[in-house]
Amino acid sequence: MRGTLGAVEFDPDDPVFRVHEGGKLALRSTLPLTDRESLSLAYTPGVADVCLAIADDESLARRYTWRSRLVAVVSDGTAVLGLGNIGPAAALPVMEGKAALFSEFAGLNSVPVVLATTDVDEIVETVVRMAPSFGGINLEDISAPRCFEIEQRLRERLDIPVFHDDQHGTAVVTLAALRNAATVTGRTLADLRVVVSGAGAAGVACTKILLAAGIGDIAVADSKGVVHDGRSDLTSVKAELAAITNRSGLRGSLADAMDGADVFLGLSAGHVDEDVVRRMAPDAIIFALANPTPEVDPLLAHKYASVVATGRSDYPNQINNVLAFPGIFAGAFDAGATAITEGMKLAAAQALSDVVADALTAEYIVPTPFDPRVGPAVAAAVAAQARADGVATA
Amino acid sequence: MRGTLGAVEFDPDDPVFRVHEGGKLALRSTLPLTDRESLSLAYTPGVADVCLAIADDESLARRYTWRSRLVAVVSDGTAVLGLGNIGPAAALPVMEGKAALFSEFAGLNSVPVVLATTDVDEIVETVVRMAPSFGGINLEDISAPRCFEIEQRLRERLDIPVFHDDQHGTAVVTLAALRNAATVTGRTLADLRVVVSGAGAAGVACTKILLAAGIGDIAVADSKGVVHDGRSDLTSVKAELAAITNRSGLRGSLADAMDGADVFLGLSAGHVDEDVVRRMAPDAIIFALANPTPEVDPLLAHKYASVVATGRSDYPNQINNVLAFPGIFAGAFDAGATAITEGMKLAAAQALSDVVADALTAEYIVPTPFDPRVGPAVAAAVAAQARADGVATA
Repeated sequence: MRGTLGAVEFDPDDPVFRVHEGGKLALRSTLPLTDRESLSLAYTPGVADVCLAIADDESLARRYTWRSRLVAVVSDGTAVLGLGNIGPAAALPVMEGKAALFSEFAGLNSVPVVLATTDVDEIVETVVRMAPSFGGINLEDISAPRCFEIEQRLRERLDIPVFHDDQHGTAVVTLAALRNAATVTGRTLADLRVVVSGAGAAGVACTKILLAAGIGDIAVADSKGVVHDGRSDLTSVKAELAAITNRSGLRGSLADAMDGADVFLGLSAGHVDEDVVRRMAPDAIIFALANPTPEVDPLLAHKYASVVATGRSDYPNQINNVLAFPGIFAGAFDAGATAITEGMKLAAAQALSDVVADALTAEYIVPTPFDPRVGPAVAAAVAAQARADGVATA
Repeated sequence: MRGTLGAVEFDPDDPVFRVHEGGKLALRSTLPLTDRESLSLAYTPGVADVCLAIADDESLARRYTWRSRLVAVVSDGTAVLGLGNIGPAAALPVMEGKAALFSEFAGLNSVPVVLATTDVDEIVETVVRMAPSFGGINLEDISAPRCFEIEQRLRERLDIPVFHDDQHGTAVVTLAALRNAATVTGRTLADLRVVVSGAGAAGVACTKILLAAGIGDIAVADSKGVVHDGRSDLTSVKAELAAITNRSGLRGSLADAMDGADVFLGLSAGHVDEDVVRRMAPDAIIFALANPTPEVDPLLAHKYASVVATGRSDYPNQINNVLAFPGIFAGAFDAGATAITEGMKLAAAQALSDVVADALTAEYIVPTPFDPRVGPAVAAAVAAQARADGVATA
């Protein structure tokens, strides 16, 4: 049964297991190594010249090694899909899939690195030590609140892009979609009052990017209700959320906050009843992103909302991170970026919105994952913003 | 100038630099990710079933992830080729080349991991933590004596193959070649008195495998002369060498030990004068493996020796590790080996000897690197021995 660990039906003839046989990645040499001459160019003795050149000037590693377009997909297996803490070996198929997406959607090289530790200090040290092997670090499926500290510390320690996709990939695509949803319904972001359900990795990052994009009124709810500064049970991350959100001073439950709200952004595995949805403002926007079961049933959502998005591929308006992370890393690499700035994330979201701007409808607020315009558009915007933000080296 | 750090002539139009542009490895998805259906099989939601199956039974990771045929090529950049401690970034082109060789010569996946630490404890911990990502660990270009402790501790901590190629790859190929050189000159290994020049990674490993293969009389010399138990300047590794070698109780210099020796095995960057070579026994065997400059000039060696081997591709009898490591890992993976035993190394050497056994001449004691029989023969022998040694799981 998906979503809970326990008895799994393992059927090697199932198509899912058949396609996974042997794993999903293959690595090959880009050079022929078929005779003495090719071997002496690509390996010894020729390679020594390249080594010495890089030893003299490390910036040449960008040009003469594969790392400049290589993403490590790093996970400790603690928050894998909706499955929870299943450990590094069981997380590996997801990380292989992610690496495959980097390859297929942006032509980048990517290697899964799953870790036999869940200790924050150990994860940080391990990634720092192996960082010379890679051009960027994509953190994946690491549980909150540990993910916030790990990302923050790695950003401080490393001079390559570090990006926790569960936070920022979701945030970028959500912002892009919400901007277009506002346009479709004749509003701007600043007009919207938003309720976010979920204060985990995605909830925190979405809230922050929406604030940065100009939405002033956001309330976040966790399982205990609206996050506000009168609560004594807040983690430091949630206390920060309380300080920067909820300007109208809401208290009480998620349902209370939904009263008259323009936008519901579901980033939890919860369920919202029809009588709560009914109380939203006219022209409501519902993003119910939990997988596989959206917080609001899409058919029900359409009864009350003008625009509905989910995380599922079998409904319109799929909020899928693959719209963001391949282009973001490609753009960062194109610019030789030493970090991924807030501006670069905002630029990615704007570029993603723009791809479908001239064809917007309530059922088409984001491109589909296979739209070939997406990757190049996001990459170009991100690279340009890296240069504007002073983090580019190329 | 190769061999010493310092002014390097960097010429981007040089063929060596041209072939290194962008690095030497490419990673791709083995599955198409071109539509919603393929994405839902290879990634979410389908992949969740594979994750859950592995969470229930980790042995399924062998079948359903790429790690079962994935080698990490791990280096700290402290002993790269003959260049010394050039650091992780400058070491990366060599590690990419090594990974490319694993792919080209054994069809294995391989990823370079260069580390921003030279501390033994930190290297061990880092590799242990990332080990769930990989099926085997190939240690590379790590300086002695640190390499011995790192390998030993990783072998104790991990249940996947750990193999320091600079030690054991060299040892396996050397043993294979020396057995055939003995045959060519009408002797067996037990008949030979051997002098090893160099007590670093390769010297220690070659000495141990030659002893295990039945050579009784070996003397090892380092820069201070013959290693013997009367010396007070020995590291613990060299003290162990003193205890297991030099049964004839030699003292003095390398030149002294060469008097009447049957075999010279050069694994240092030293130089041996003609008057020393002249004093070797009749039908001498000279393996002068230093690169790019052999310890004994090959033309000179031929004046006094019946069989001459070097590390260079432009002379006959090249002792090249690529004859060993691809097949050793392939065989270990075929058997699902949890370690690489001494027996597996001996089996690899025997298989390598046997490939050319029916065509032996003094100029053909080992196959060429491109002989297509080598990889399969070594792999089959290693897998069979893994089963015999009780370390196989498949």
